[in-house]
Amino acid sequence: MKAVSVINKNFLQLSNNYLFAEIAKRVKEYKENHADEKVISLGIGDVTRPLPPAITDAMHKAVDELGVQSTFRGYGPERGYDFLREAIIEGDFKSRGVEMDASEVFVNDGAKSDTGNIGDILSADCTIGITDPAYPVYIDSNRMAGRQVEFISDACSVPDHKIDVVYLCYPNNPTGEVLTREMLTRWVEWAQQQGALLLYDAAYEAFIRDEAVPHSIYEIPGARSCAIEFHSFSKTAGFTGVRCGYTVIPKDLGELNHLWERRQCTKFNGASYIAQRGAEAVYSAEGRKQTRAIIDYYMENARLMTESLTACGYEVRGGKNAPYLWVKTPAGCDSWAFFDKLLNECSLVCTPGVGFGKQGEGYVRFTAFGEREDCIEAMKRIQALA
Amino acid sequence: MKAVSVINKNFLQLSNNYLFAEIAKRVKEYKENHADEKVISLGIGDVTRPLPPAITDAMHKAVDELGVQSTFRGYGPERGYDFLREAIIEGDFKSRGVEMDASEVFVNDGAKSDTGNIGDILSADCTIGITDPAYPVYIDSNRMAGRQVEFISDACSVPDHKIDVVYLCYPNNPTGEVLTREMLTRWVEWAQQQGALLLYDAAYEAFIRDEAVPHSIYEIPGARSCAIEFHSFSKTAGFTGVRCGYTVIPKDLGELNHLWERRQCTKFNGASYIAQRGAEAVYSAEGRKQTRAIIDYYMENARLMTESLTACGYEVRGGKNAPYLWVKTPAGCDSWAFFDKLLNECSLVCTPGVGFGKQGEGYVRFTAFGEREDCIEAMKRIQALA
Repeated sequence: MKAVSVINKNFLQLSNNYLFAEIAKRVKEYKENHADEKVISLGIGDVTRPLPPAITDAMHKAVDELGVQSTFRGYGPERGYDFLREAIIEGDFKSRGVEMDASEVFVNDGAKSDTGNIGDILSADCTIGITDPAYPVYIDSNRMAGRQVEFISDACSVPDHKIDVVYLCYPNNPTGEVLTREMLTRWVEWAQQQGALLLYDAAYEAFIRDEAVPHSIYEIPGARSCAIEFHSFSKTAGFTGVRCGYTVIPKDLGELNHLWERRQCTKFNGASYIAQRGAEAVYSAEGRKQTRAIIDYYMENARLMTESLTACGYEVRGGKNAPYLWVKTPAGCDSWAFFDKLLNECSLVCTPGVGFGKQGEGYVRFTAFGEREDCIEAMKRIQALA
Repeated sequence: MKAVSVINKNFLQLSNNYLFAEIAKRVKEYKENHADEKVISLGIGDVTRPLPPAITDAMHKAVDELGVQSTFRGYGPERGYDFLREAIIEGDFKSRGVEMDASEVFVNDGAKSDTGNIGDILSADCTIGITDPAYPVYIDSNRMAGRQVEFISDACSVPDHKIDVVYLCYPNNPTGEVLTREMLTRWVEWAQQQGALLLYDAAYEAFIRDEAVPHSIYEIPGARSCAIEFHSFSKTAGFTGVRCGYTVIPKDLGELNHLWERRQCTKFNGASYIAQRGAEAVYSAEGRKQTRAIIDYYMENARLMTESLTACGYEVRGGKNAPYLWVKTPAGCDSWAFFDKLLNECSLVCTPGVGFGKQGEGYVRFTAFGEREDCIEAMKRIQALA
């Protein structure tokens, strides 16, 4: 076909291998040659615990409603049902002393969609700042749109110059680190001074244990006029297969709230009703208790792994307010070399830090989302290695 | 906020009123002043019949699986589960003698998302051809990306010049008309000669009754090298609230298949597992029978409405292979005037044809998605008007 003329050529500038595809390829090869070994994956950040009953009950009820004439629902509101947006306002904002209106909340089919699609309402010639290392979606989705990306090597000090749009993700994927209230305040003040827009990815906020760490950027005065925030039920409530999240665009951002509504009305038709009823149940008393128990389970994995790796002499960051451990590779071993070593000698899958950016070189990421016994077994294998 | 500098200014060129928002506003005002009247909506193309048991059973089962450790599923494949893509290949293509590989099918959360997002992989300077009248998403999503749109006033003759990308939707929304095999062949040949790309929206193919009308553009030889096709379970199976559809990008289109995969892996995380299991059930023997019965119900509405409107002297198009009736307004009455007349004198909501394009002026669209008794009552009210 001659369709090459219609192609968005920015795609041709993308690096060929998506990180997780390359990992999958190497793991597949290993498994083919080691059919007897039990491979343990601490690689991709996907949950493993089943959905708790408060959520499955709500989703069963939603399915039943769709099967009956009097309760059937077709197209929902593009920005999400009121019942969910109001539960979000109460549960995630008012309860933390943050004022937010339901018209500022947009329900979606998961945070990945919106962290990518948000570029639709931004100018193609914006400069984009992304911390290094970072979740690859920020980089690739902007490069697809032809935008220049500037890497920020240290999110603990704000840039000394204007960048139009800056992505921040805390608790961080991949490093598991958090920003203190003071540091986040400095970012908000910088954005206000520069007229910059912050895109704050709060997908892992449910894992925060330290009471001094903000769950939302809107806990910082002034953030309403300089920040968009992304939330996800994927990690909070095990929704990686169910698909639901939400984006907050305060009215204080001017046109952006209206532009996003227009974008969503044109290119999105609302999240699944079943998923939205499941997400609403996350905020019920039972839902909170049950999802909290699952997060506690993962965080106990993180604690055990941190303890064990530290005892083996590894330098470990993260893991305290996040489900990710950021582990320095042994001397003489780069990210992929250590990945290969763990795969070949321990039948263990991690994620090479360099896949998240140049400054991730010399690190690997472990996730705490596994089964307890797998985490314990993985640590035993690493101990045997050391 | 100074964020105006980061805004995609193409959005500011969009017409202010989204068609359905304007309709909703007028209906709301009418209802506030006529609380006693029963307003019947034949306006927005949304289904009303409940999901049949084959589908709700499958979704209940999926919810149960997600609630149990051994059957829990997290992230699914971005392009959709094999079970669904294989069911699609068998049910929608092989059964019609069309060869298609599962790697050419991309499951999504509804056709609206992909008919909009497909622009991500197309060059910003492509010329875009859109039939007039048309589904507004084609126009707005391209204008948001800064593309020039050229209107095609008669889809029954191909353009005499090159247009890079042309949207075709058959059975058509809003006119309910279909393209014959001969006409569609002429489009495919034109696209091949010009090196153009056709974006074929087959969202309403399940409503085709005439055996001579193609359900898929791939029934036409050569289409694999010049056409992308969009399908939806929204109208086929009542999924407007469930959210699932799929896009076909044949490998013969060269880079486009790979580019779309890359786009989806970066900006989408797969459709809800529950929705995908529901969609799979559409292809089971029971699922086919039950969804077919619902389509028959809507098409009987269309027949009754066509008969009644024709008897009243209205000129009616569509309604034979589509759930839409395209009705010429009475002399001296433009689209919005007739809309207002039907609202004010019959408490009836339709869609003004001009909302779909200049050539829609002088028409209104009725949908056959209502309850039978509402359709009959609506026709009685129109008879009384005449």
